[in-house]
Amino acid sequence: MREITGTTRIYGILADPIHHVKTPQVMNALLARAGIDGVLVPFHVAPDGLAGAVDGLRRMRNLGGFIATVPHKTAMLGLCDEVAPEARLVGAVNCVRRDPDGRMVGTMLDGLGFVAALRACGEDPRGRRACLAGAGGAASAIAFALAGAGVAHLTVVNRTAARTDALLARLRAAHPGLSLATQAAPGHDLLVNGTSLGMRPGDPLPLDASLLADRPFVAEAIMEPETTPLLAAAEAAGCRIQRGRPMLEGQIALMAGHMGAL
Amino acid sequence: MREITGTTRIYGILADPIHHVKTPQVMNALLARAGIDGVLVPFHVAPDGLAGAVDGLRRMRNLGGFIATVPHKTAMLGLCDEVAPEARLVGAVNCVRRDPDGRMVGTMLDGLGFVAALRACGEDPRGRRACLAGAGGAASAIAFALAGAGVAHLTVVNRTAARTDALLARLRAAHPGLSLATQAAPGHDLLVNGTSLGMRPGDPLPLDASLLADRPFVAEAIMEPETTPLLAAAEAAGCRIQRGRPMLEGQIALMAGHMGAL
Repeated sequence: MREITGTTRIYGILADPIHHVKTPQVMNALLARAGIDGVLVPFHVAPDGLAGAVDGLRRMRNLGGFIATVPHKTAMLGLCDEVAPEARLVGAVNCVRRDPDGRMVGTMLDGLGFVAALRACGEDPRGRRACLAGAGGAASAIAFALAGAGVAHLTVVNRTAARTDALLARLRAAHPGLSLATQAAPGHDLLVNGTSLGMRPGDPLPLDASLLADRPFVAEAIMEPETTPLLAAAEAAGCRIQRGRPMLEGQIALMAGHMGAL
Repeated sequence: MREITGTTRIYGILADPIHHVKTPQVMNALLARAGIDGVLVPFHVAPDGLAGAVDGLRRMRNLGGFIATVPHKTAMLGLCDEVAPEARLVGAVNCVRRDPDGRMVGTMLDGLGFVAALRACGEDPRGRRACLAGAGGAASAIAFALAGAGVAHLTVVNRTAARTDALLARLRAAHPGLSLATQAAPGHDLLVNGTSLGMRPGDPLPLDASLLADRPFVAEAIMEPETTPLLAAAEAAGCRIQRGRPMLEGQIALMAGHMGAL
């Protein structure tokens, strides 16, 4: 890593908890490789402190921007001065550029990063029958990106039915021809975990293990542990898998670009 | 430097301008040598954004504290929840610890760092006749530290007479027996620049060059340029000098201690 001096531009990641984030390592390696005088640092901010923290970051003139992750993505939508259409569609913001006048410009890159990572593995989602666990910020982003990438069918499985219904309504509005369902049943060739189930020991599987019988490709948004119980079960069932880290790596250059670092 | 991860504690320096600060390099070297998982980064904050920036830093739970430098030291006094007696005396704060509950606890270490650096050079101020340029935050801190270290006499030279008078009144109250003056005249064996004159090309000297005829020891608070016009003139006159950087190095461990980093 390059030495931090008075000319170094600052980037942040806001999360709660913060200890598990991998973005500082991945972004700082990218900035170092590109010879950029910038550094990304973790900011541990609780939900009730988010608005105040963002207002403080507005005052920091050498701040290029920041990444927002769990649990801040939805709330960030209302704290930006300007929001990209894809973030508005998803209903969440995960990357914010600070313009020189202090305006905060948000976008949502989780889904684009996820699809970029899938394609980098040779797994093009076009024409696939996908099943996604979750309807929160990350899951919604993945849902819209999968729809945009041309999946033939998308099942959304989530504990809170109201949240699922709201996501499906927004998906229908943006992609009128897409086949949608809310009950997991056999016949999927792409399973995706977009929930946080699998982060903590003892979490139940985010999707029913019987879905692995079809030998689908299984992708995970969780980065720690590297191999979640879902990925372990998928490997045991002979499925090809994609861990969470490539999803981050797939979008890290997109994030650096949005924040003006590259 | 150690890799920055989600567990790294954050420290900051607030300044305007910011590009010239050397604290990130010096503090990060100290933290690396001590094996501490922490990093200090520059935050460029203008005076009108200081209160908002400090309020934002309160929300950052992994922030250990920050250093405040020009032009924020005086304003920080009113933005802390608790202020050490030495900071109250000087009327300025240059180092703030963030307690786990978000309370900001300020102190002033400029003067103690300056005297520690003088002593490290073998230049004990006890019994000296000192002449100090400036009556702002840094100069006041140096004045109180010199008085506390037992100088025999202190002359304070400053363009704004009201500020000088206020500093002298506070010095008199805290050190009733100290000989004080406000007009530079021959007969000093320690000259100190506590103003920012010498930072910008074309600045006038902060003290009358005729004072160098006594071959005093000349100390500088400015760190960039490394050799200010005053130091160049002092060297040309055969004086021993102390640059600004040792003043920072003299207090960096004190700052790390106050912020709970060491």
